[in-house]
Amino acid sequence: MIDTGVGSTEPARSGGGGLAATGAETQRVVLFDEDDPLVLDSGELLAPVEVAYETYGTLDDDASNAVFVCHALTGDAHAAGEGGWWNTLVGPGKPVDTDHFFVVCPNLLGGCRGTTGPSSVDPRTGRPYGLRFPQFTVRDLVRVHRALAASLGVERLAAAVGGSLGGMQVLQWALDHPEALERAVVIAAPARLSAQNIAFSAVARASILQDEHFHGGDYYDREERPEVGLAVARMLAHITYVSETSLERKFGRRRHGDAFEVERYLHHQGRSFLRRFDANSYLYLTRVMESFDAFADGPPGRLAARFLLVSFDTDWRFPTRAVREVADVLAAVGADVRFREIASPHGHDSFLLPVRVYHETVRAFLGA
Amino acid sequence: MIDTGVGSTEPARSGGGGLAATGAETQRVVLFDEDDPLVLDSGELLAPVEVAYETYGTLDDDASNAVFVCHALTGDAHAAGEGGWWNTLVGPGKPVDTDHFFVVCPNLLGGCRGTTGPSSVDPRTGRPYGLRFPQFTVRDLVRVHRALAASLGVERLAAAVGGSLGGMQVLQWALDHPEALERAVVIAAPARLSAQNIAFSAVARASILQDEHFHGGDYYDREERPEVGLAVARMLAHITYVSETSLERKFGRRRHGDAFEVERYLHHQGRSFLRRFDANSYLYLTRVMESFDAFADGPPGRLAARFLLVSFDTDWRFPTRAVREVADVLAAVGADVRFREIASPHGHDSFLLPVRVYHETVRAFLGA
Repeated sequence: MIDTGVGSTEPARSGGGGLAATGAETQRVVLFDEDDPLVLDSGELLAPVEVAYETYGTLDDDASNAVFVCHALTGDAHAAGEGGWWNTLVGPGKPVDTDHFFVVCPNLLGGCRGTTGPSSVDPRTGRPYGLRFPQFTVRDLVRVHRALAASLGVERLAAAVGGSLGGMQVLQWALDHPEALERAVVIAAPARLSAQNIAFSAVARASILQDEHFHGGDYYDREERPEVGLAVARMLAHITYVSETSLERKFGRRRHGDAFEVERYLHHQGRSFLRRFDANSYLYLTRVMESFDAFADGPPGRLAARFLLVSFDTDWRFPTRAVREVADVLAAVGADVRFREIASPHGHDSFLLPVRVYHETVRAFLGA
Repeated sequence: MIDTGVGSTEPARSGGGGLAATGAETQRVVLFDEDDPLVLDSGELLAPVEVAYETYGTLDDDASNAVFVCHALTGDAHAAGEGGWWNTLVGPGKPVDTDHFFVVCPNLLGGCRGTTGPSSVDPRTGRPYGLRFPQFTVRDLVRVHRALAASLGVERLAAAVGGSLGGMQVLQWALDHPEALERAVVIAAPARLSAQNIAFSAVARASILQDEHFHGGDYYDREERPEVGLAVARMLAHITYVSETSLERKFGRRRHGDAFEVERYLHHQGRSFLRRFDANSYLYLTRVMESFDAFADGPPGRLAARFLLVSFDTDWRFPTRAVREVADVLAAVGADVRFREIASPHGHDSFLLPVRVYHETVRAFLGA
């Protein structure tokens, strides 16, 4: 993803050691507690589960205009408004039109921007979970989203919209609860990660796990954090988010003193990321992406939701063929599916950028 | 490159801290000394320069059958014979036929397998150079090759052959000394690195430089070496050496216990590499590749050498379009150039593998 930063001020560290969610509009709600814990895919129980989220627009009287925005690996609840990571797509008069829709964007389970995750305090020990946080899946992310929707009085969504890991959540939601969604917008997301996708994540994780300051994930009360490992992980991931062409156009072989500009740029990307992300959350959420396998149990049954699937022609992380495969499987079981490959030079990051045809496609689909 | 390992035994650490070159047949020669130092592209002087090399076959009476094999980023002098990294291509009756040619393969300047490099002792201090080793270029690699050829009584090569960084050396040699080569075989090598190529190297270097055991490059007399950083660098580089398709076919999403097999495989690649490579050499030689820009001074003059350029259709590190550009520039100045794109599923690593059409192409070119 592109490094948008979040808000205009540096986020403060929270007491639990995570990075605090920013934005005066960010709300928090406890959705699961000791009496009613979250039952994970693995069978493990988790409580409490607090979720940070933002909403934009107004829920209508029959609660029929709610749209969930599902964020990607390193996103947060601040999707729209100044500094919002999807502010080009979500807002008044924008393709996800908050004059019309009531938009909800939660920070993901396992994240570090206000929702319960590895940096949260484990009530059993009084210390941050670290690597004792349970493993979870995209299905579990959707479980928490559904609980949040229910808490807001929403039974059925007008739409769920997401790119990359966000698109995986939307797809899982539509597969598991097809009656709960009117429209599903799945952008630059595959049915499952490829061996190459996993390989890049494996290197990123190796970099974090082997950082001298990682201490088995228990670094929250220490002076130093595994910043070096996390920065290298981010530098690597960033390369996969942009197209070869866009890197070439932006930097080519230009130098700044002895160093190539592309090298300086990547180091900057790595450093900026440290201010807003937690290494343990990075480990957990990359694993969540890898465990995702939408059609592992065979083709889905009858699906009521209407689907829009979008790919970008220069996205080499989750290329057109991977997104088209999702469309083909859905179409084969009779689902109402539109698939669009969008021309954009920006690679995987295109889903975060105001690419005109892409935005028009989303607008038309949500307005149809 | 593929992790072939070298020889059948673990290489011992040399006194200077570098990894020793293996093989009873490896020879060493001091080519530059205090009285006749190597004058680098930068103007700096380097002495002594000792080179480890192997030879195969017999030099004929008029010294007209010598072929230089130039190795890639992490190769060494042991090209042919048991465990040789190019044993499929070089040997009796093979495409680079040692029944016919006298083949010379030196370890590169700046390497760690017997030739002077950052792990060698700096005579001014009595300690390994580390990062005090001077910067050098592909042109400097060729300078040392030429000195070795002269020491063997060879004035003009029948051919120079190399893949990846090896191909860059061959190209530089043919551009700078076109009369000194009869044939130039440039395999899977571009005229210059792309921004994406540099970006991947930048992450690899960041991983090494930020290893807690790197100590500014002065780790040779310490208990620990920057093995973690070097292993992560190798894991990352390895992904770029293989095609997405070959990773998918080999591993897909198969698991071994909880872990994906591709992740275990990459960790194994990283660990194996530590036994045969030095972190400082990795830093220097990646920089050498990046500084290479074959046509930076404009198109070359008249070139006497005959060229074969080879690319592989699934090589995404140095793709066909990058190799074809070299062929086009050479052809535009009237050089005798053959360009072949070879179909192979193995990505950049194909140059090390016995791909039939590729081997036939090299054999035919050298026999013509």
